[in-house]
Amino acid sequence: MGKVIAELVVVPLGTGSPSVSSYVANVERVLATFNLKQELTPMGTILEGDLDEVLKAAKAAHEVPFHKGALRVSTSLKIDERRDKDLSMEGKIASVKQKLK
Amino acid sequence: MGKVIAELVVVPLGTGSPSVSSYVANVERVLATFNLKQELTPMGTILEGDLDEVLKAAKAAHEVPFHKGALRVSTSLKIDERRDKDLSMEGKIASVKQKLK
Amino acid sequence: MGKVIAELVVVPLGTGSPSVSSYVANVERVLATFNLKQELTPMGTILEGDLDEVLKAAKAAHEVPFHKGALRVSTSLKIDERRDKDLSMEGKIASVKQKLK
Amino acid sequence: MGKVIAELVVVPLGTGSPSVSSYVANVERVLATFNLKQELTPMGTILEGDLDEVLKAAKAAHEVPFHKGALRVSTSLKIDERRDKDLSMEGKIASVKQKLK
Repeated sequence: MGKVIAELVVVPLGTGSPSVSSYVANVERVLATFNLKQELTPMGTILEGDLDEVLKAAKAAHEVPFHKGALRVSTSLKIDERRDKDLSMEGKIASVKQKLK
Repeated sequence: MGKVIAELVVVPLGTGSPSVSSYVANVERVLATFNLKQELTPMGTILEGDLDEVLKAAKAAHEVPFHKGALRVSTSLKIDERRDKDLSMEGKIASVKQKLK
Repeated sequence: MGKVIAELVVVPLGTGSPSVSSYVANVERVLATFNLKQELTPMGTILEGDLDEVLKAAKAAHEVPFHKGALRVSTSLKIDERRDKDLSMEGKIASVKQKLK
Repeated sequence: MGKVIAELVVVPLGTGSPSVSSYVANVERVLATFNLKQELTPMGTILEGDLDEVLKAAKAAHEVPFHKGALRVSTSLKIDERRDKDLSMEGKIASVKQKLK
C-alpha cells in the first residue's frame, strides 16, 4: 500500500530556446537520488515507488529549471495507485501485451 | 517565492458508476481544510498557495476516493510557478482579458 | 451523443519570456470562431460541444503560437464524454455543489 | 512540418473493475491501424507522425471503451511539435541521454 506509478513532466517556460533536453537531463539526475524506479520516455519520466517519495522527488525536480535560470516552470505529475493489488511498470505493460496476443 | 497556481484532478476508477460528483464533493471538502485558495471548474480544482501546502493537499485529496471504497485512483496535479513575479488566479485571467480588449 | 467537455492548454516553449498571456489571448480569439461554449480558467480553456468541433478547434489553437513566432508548442487536450447522459459545464459544477450542501 | 510526438491516454470510468488493461489492449489495436509510430508505456501510448493522423487516431481510440460498454471515457492527448527541427521519439531520448553522459 502506498506504492504508486507516476508520470512526471517538468517544463521550463521562456528560456529563449525550444530545446529542453539539458533541463530534462538535470531533472533525471535529481530524480536518480530518490529511492524510486525511474524510466525516461519521449514525453516524461515514469516513476515507481512510495507516494511520499514520489512527491518529494516531484518537488525537487520542479526546482531544477529554476536553478538553471528559468523564471517559470510548469510541472505535471500524474499518480496511478491501486489498492487491491500492487502496480508495477512491468506489470502494467505485461498485462496489456498478454491481451494483445 | 514558493507560491504556485495548481490544478488538481482526482478520478476514481472501477467504481461501477460513471458519475464521480460525490467523490469530487468529498475532495472539495478535504481541500478546504488546507490553507489554499480553491476554485472548482468543470474539469478540476484550481489551487493557489505555497507549493508545500499544495503537495500536502494533493496527497490528502488522492486518499479520498479510497476512503469511499474505490480500489484505484488516478490523480493529476499540474503546478505553475513563476519566480520573476507572483502568479495569482485573478492575475492570470486579468492579464489575458486585458489583451482581449 | 458526441457532445463533450474538454480542457485545452496551449503553451509556447522557448519564447524568451515567462509571460504567455498574449499567446493565450490569441488562442482565445481563435477558439471563439468555433461553435463551442468556451470558458477561460487560470490553467486553460474549457470547451463544450461536439467532439469533431473540439478537435478542429484544438488543431487551430495549436497553430496560434507558431504564427506568433514560437518554434515549439506543447498542447494538451483532455476530453470528458458520457454516453448515458449529456454532460455540460454548468451541470458538472451544479452536481458537485448540490452534494456540498 | 506537421510531424509531432504525442501522448495519448484513454481511460474508461465507472466500469466496475479497477483493471483497464483489456481496454488499453483494444486501444492499442485501433491505434495500430493508423500511419503512426506507436510505443506503449506504463502510463499511456506515445505516437509519432502527422498531426492530422494523430487527431484521427485519438478520436478513434476515444471511441474504443464505449464499444466495450463503458458509459464514460476520459481521453488525454498531449502534442509536442517543434518547427525549427523535426522531433522523433528516439531523437528526444538520445538528446537527453547524451547530456547525461
